[in-house]
Amino acid sequence: MKNFIFHNPTKYIFGKDTIKKIGGEIASFGSKKVLLVAGGGSIKKNGVYDTVIDSLKKHGIQWVELWGVRPNPVLSKVKEGIEIAKEENADGVLAVGGGSVIDTAKAIANGVFVDDVWKLFLRKNPLKPTKALPIYVVLTLSATGSEMNGTAVITNEEEKVKWSYRSLTNYPKVSIVDPTVQFSLPQRQTANGGSDSLSHIIESYITGKPTDTTVYFDEGLMRSIIDNIDRLMTDPSDYEARASFAWAATLAFNGLSLTGLGGDWAAHAIEHAISALHPDVAHGTGLAVIQPAVIMYRKKFNPDITERWAMQVWNASSTEEGVEKMREKFVSWGLPVALKALGVTPDEWEEIAVKAIEFRPKNAWGDFSKDDVFEILKLADIE
Amino acid sequence: MKNFIFHNPTKYIFGKDTIKKIGGEIASFGSKKVLLVAGGGSIKKNGVYDTVIDSLKKHGIQWVELWGVRPNPVLSKVKEGIEIAKEENADGVLAVGGGSVIDTAKAIANGVFVDDVWKLFLRKNPLKPTKALPIYVVLTLSATGSEMNGTAVITNEEEKVKWSYRSLTNYPKVSIVDPTVQFSLPQRQTANGGSDSLSHIIESYITGKPTDTTVYFDEGLMRSIIDNIDRLMTDPSDYEARASFAWAATLAFNGLSLTGLGGDWAAHAIEHAISALHPDVAHGTGLAVIQPAVIMYRKKFNPDITERWAMQVWNASSTEEGVEKMREKFVSWGLPVALKALGVTPDEWEEIAVKAIEFRPKNAWGDFSKDDVFEILKLADIE
Repeated sequence: MKNFIFHNPTKYIFGKDTIKKIGGEIASFGSKKVLLVAGGGSIKKNGVYDTVIDSLKKHGIQWVELWGVRPNPVLSKVKEGIEIAKEENADGVLAVGGGSVIDTAKAIANGVFVDDVWKLFLRKNPLKPTKALPIYVVLTLSATGSEMNGTAVITNEEEKVKWSYRSLTNYPKVSIVDPTVQFSLPQRQTANGGSDSLSHIIESYITGKPTDTTVYFDEGLMRSIIDNIDRLMTDPSDYEARASFAWAATLAFNGLSLTGLGGDWAAHAIEHAISALHPDVAHGTGLAVIQPAVIMYRKKFNPDITERWAMQVWNASSTEEGVEKMREKFVSWGLPVALKALGVTPDEWEEIAVKAIEFRPKNAWGDFSKDDVFEILKLADIE
Repeated sequence: MKNFIFHNPTKYIFGKDTIKKIGGEIASFGSKKVLLVAGGGSIKKNGVYDTVIDSLKKHGIQWVELWGVRPNPVLSKVKEGIEIAKEENADGVLAVGGGSVIDTAKAIANGVFVDDVWKLFLRKNPLKPTKALPIYVVLTLSATGSEMNGTAVITNEEEKVKWSYRSLTNYPKVSIVDPTVQFSLPQRQTANGGSDSLSHIIESYITGKPTDTTVYFDEGLMRSIIDNIDRLMTDPSDYEARASFAWAATLAFNGLSLTGLGGDWAAHAIEHAISALHPDVAHGTGLAVIQPAVIMYRKKFNPDITERWAMQVWNASSTEEGVEKMREKFVSWGLPVALKALGVTPDEWEEIAVKAIEFRPKNAWGDFSKDDVFEILKLADIE
């Protein structure tokens, strides 16, 4: 096990009928006027918006609104939010939505205190944030874990790069997760959430040793995600499955699943490069294609752990069989597993490799090279 | 899954050579003079004390010392600490030791602000703490999880009761865990830590549903504890095993292992009653006797989960076989599994039942009754 620091101060409120607590929580942390950040309007259809607004009113919290955050959230929307937050003197940012909305809210909350928010995301000599507006979250889509971590991922449309940064200032003060509001999600989004959260665990898991405590509980988390997504594919309104998946998706990326391990992040680096070129590729969909190929590729770096993964998570007797079962599972969830299905053409491989390495120049195995990316893309280039 | 709130703000610093960071961490949280709480002096033999003092000096932190905290820590020592903290104007409490030392430090940190510290522990109408001195921890014995939770357990010697309370004010600001300092522990203490941490998980696990994410996660933790304690029984200086067990013991009782589940706590209630009567019985040793009996007893309340536990944790085909394997494991670690071995005589059962119910009048199954305690004691009364 490597040395680590685990420090996650987010207050996480989970369960049925909990969204109405948001106003009281915001008041208890001292905010009086929040910038409410949201996506395309689904929260108006499923009643979440009304519940949030009622709670804000009840506790005397004022608000202004920023709508239109989309999957693979963009820098221009962040800048728009920063301007509104400054003009309106917001003293908090409230994200009501999924990972894209939360990440936008994080960037806004930090961005109001710096001259150029993109400097926080730079791969070389980034600006270190020292303060941010308090961030509050009502989660409507479990996938990225952003509701309980310090990471924000934003796409710079002009430069066509999708970069992230981590900071203690990015942790939400409070996150409220009511799994019932996810009953109405399209099945494809649930499947993407399953793929994304599995990948968050695997990226670190495959660098571990078979004796690591983190490896043991990561296996429990992976099993739970697989079993509970299976249940949701049959019945999207199964509360127990929805709740178990929601909590697992948070745990998959709140820092726990990687304690004492290293990080590969090859799959995320390559997926970020692909979806920067193909903005319509959802993050979880891209990962469903790339992550199995990465596991296959990493077998030669850490066979003890890939074999253990195959056995413990898939009841398979080899890494190859485990990867095969993972792909069969993704297909049963309606996800693609072949690179072609993402619309990636061979002439893009070079640019993908360059962008992926820019995103993640080093990892647990040392330098992350163009050769690595090409080998992984080859393993994902199946029929 | 039940609704839950998870909020654990402790900064947890883990790994080799980390104790020297304590002075800098205390300074960063603003304390200038701490009450250093410690046990019988083992930290002077293994070098931990010197490392801590060097670090305090380096960062200009003053300190006063309270020595002599013993297993099953007592109220009189807490009161002694409160007096010293007040007289010396300490603005923080630094625990250097195991669970008993940390729990004493927590009670002191809260106790300086109330007229009678025992009122915090009362089972009926306890006083609610609203503030405490900041608590800092250097852990030297992994078992209770107190380094990253809000619980303190103290024995009132006069009233012969061992009671606990939970509060957000009890969470340490910082806990430092360097597994190497545990190489020199007596094997019996390592075994007790294994038993204690398994019990922390099982108390909630056995109330769960087989689909719960926490159930999956808990199974990973239990497996890791069993495998890594096995390794430590062979080689007490195996760093990887020591580190994996230390982190698992923290996770077993930092709130995660019970998210969304209920609580039985029959084993802890009975063990607390026993060790209040027999102060020489270590907590983990008492639990090694009582916990298997509780699992056997709870089979009729929740057979799906006890059968799942037997299969997933012990590769056993029935609850009975799982319990049998658990007892064999404890015996292989040098722990007793028969009630007689604790020195408990049949004429004490009545008093144990009364005290256990006083400690835990209700639990996940409803009222916790004298009949329950007698049934459990019967199942623990083996040869």
